[in-house]
Amino acid sequence: MSTFSRLIKFVASEDNKIYFADAGVSDTIEAGNKFDGYPSIEALDLKSGGRKVSVSQLLAPTPTESNPIYCVGLNFAPHVKEAGMTVPLAPPIWLKPARAWANPGETIPFSKWTAENFPDYEAWQTNDFRSGEARDVSVADANDYILGYTIGNDLTARVHQDPPRSGWQFGYSKGFDKFAPIGPYLVPPSKFSIKESSVQTRINGALRQNSPLDLIFGPQDVLSFISQSTTIPAGTAIMTGTPGGVGWFAKPQVSLKDGDEMEVTITGLGVLKNKVKFV
Amino acid sequence: MSTFSRLIKFVASEDNKIYFADAGVSDTIEAGNKFDGYPSIEALDLKSGGRKVSVSQLLAPTPTESNPIYCVGLNFAPHVKEAGMTVPLAPPIWLKPARAWANPGETIPFSKWTAENFPDYEAWQTNDFRSGEARDVSVADANDYILGYTIGNDLTARVHQDPPRSGWQFGYSKGFDKFAPIGPYLVPPSKFSIKESSVQTRINGALRQNSPLDLIFGPQDVLSFISQSTTIPAGTAIMTGTPGGVGWFAKPQVSLKDGDEMEVTITGLGVLKNKVKFV
Repeated sequence: MSTFSRLIKFVASEDNKIYFADAGVSDTIEAGNKFDGYPSIEALDLKSGGRKVSVSQLLAPTPTESNPIYCVGLNFAPHVKEAGMTVPLAPPIWLKPARAWANPGETIPFSKWTAENFPDYEAWQTNDFRSGEARDVSVADANDYILGYTIGNDLTARVHQDPPRSGWQFGYSKGFDKFAPIGPYLVPPSKFSIKESSVQTRINGALRQNSPLDLIFGPQDVLSFISQSTTIPAGTAIMTGTPGGVGWFAKPQVSLKDGDEMEVTITGLGVLKNKVKFV
Repeated sequence: MSTFSRLIKFVASEDNKIYFADAGVSDTIEAGNKFDGYPSIEALDLKSGGRKVSVSQLLAPTPTESNPIYCVGLNFAPHVKEAGMTVPLAPPIWLKPARAWANPGETIPFSKWTAENFPDYEAWQTNDFRSGEARDVSVADANDYILGYTIGNDLTARVHQDPPRSGWQFGYSKGFDKFAPIGPYLVPPSKFSIKESSVQTRINGALRQNSPLDLIFGPQDVLSFISQSTTIPAGTAIMTGTPGGVGWFAKPQVSLKDGDEMEVTITGLGVLKNKVKFV
């Protein structure tokens, strides 16, 4: 059982090492804030070996960034409709490779290969998997394996996703380096209700996505499904889908531009902010 | 520049440690054979720190099994045709997670979730990536990054791949534990010609797939494509496609059965043998 209210992971200015801390519900989390930092989530739970340190850079709130990220497509009815597709019988799954992980607040570099191929945002509710592998998890047991909930932005270069180019495989267009900003903090299952939450995306302050978290396949369904006959590594993240309102399906279409400020908000999970930089 | 003719990786019976060796062109590779074993591919290249050891168990010939495996769909015209699809403008990419790696000769366990959902084979030409990360590799430079060529079998549970269920995402149906047997040995680019090679699959000795390696997107095209704006980890494997003749599209359809012996052969790369076991 996790003891934290809001788990953060950060580089400390005192020693440039990585710490985990409980930011508590009343704290704002900014560079310079001091927290009781621990070298691992296990040490934080035990309150063992902590020290007061200052946030230099906030990191994605995950036990590890060495695993690919599981993603679930077509998991909101309005997004299925805007994409002109039908609701699949099971959660459509692809992976973003580990180098896609990016931090809250991090500026995301878009190369020509992505910047000139319709870069776009997608607000995603995201789960982090607890320490310890899992396989053949039942839906009823799934909450035992969820360390907590946070926010993701499933960055995508739409031209590479277009079916005549991709053969319908979505992963490549979404798997470029730094195309999965995740954070800012992680809230345990006992302190977050999907059914009472909503998600918004703002680009330069303008509202683009705004939806309740009406997932077709909930986090427990997805976790059980991906673990069937498959060993899921400790610390895996699962992004469970985006609502309607992405730029590719807007009328007129609108892609991300150099300098754009992206903000994804989920009730109780804070705001994930990242800036676009064409390089 | 690699110095080996046929790279093998194995557990030695003397000390249960993992070794790399050059099996040479005239050797058969079986349990009990003795080779000059080295603790890494770099040590083998330098002939440094080797010792004579016996093969206890042959492993997939790769520097590491900790990376997901890149796969390219619809890369043989006859397979595109049997699937009723059209040739995409770029290589369709998905990933098998790292736990899909399996060894040559290994018996592959099929759980009910896969055994009852039309398990099927696909013969794949497979590349292993050299040590050292790569990003933004040009087609002209791609051979510098290929450690060698071997054989893969892209095991698939077809019911999970069917588009109304999968939303067209192929990875889930192919990503179960041990669904990527790879081996038996690795031949460097200087000693293997794709254009002069062919691939066959036999199930219990009966020929099911038989085709020249007429890839739509060659290994160099694929390696360059997947590395655009994306850091490819050292030791990554890339499976570049299957020809026509899979069981799902046979008339009548035929799935893998408990006890089936699968053999995939590629000219100059030996035979990859694995047995099916329903568990």
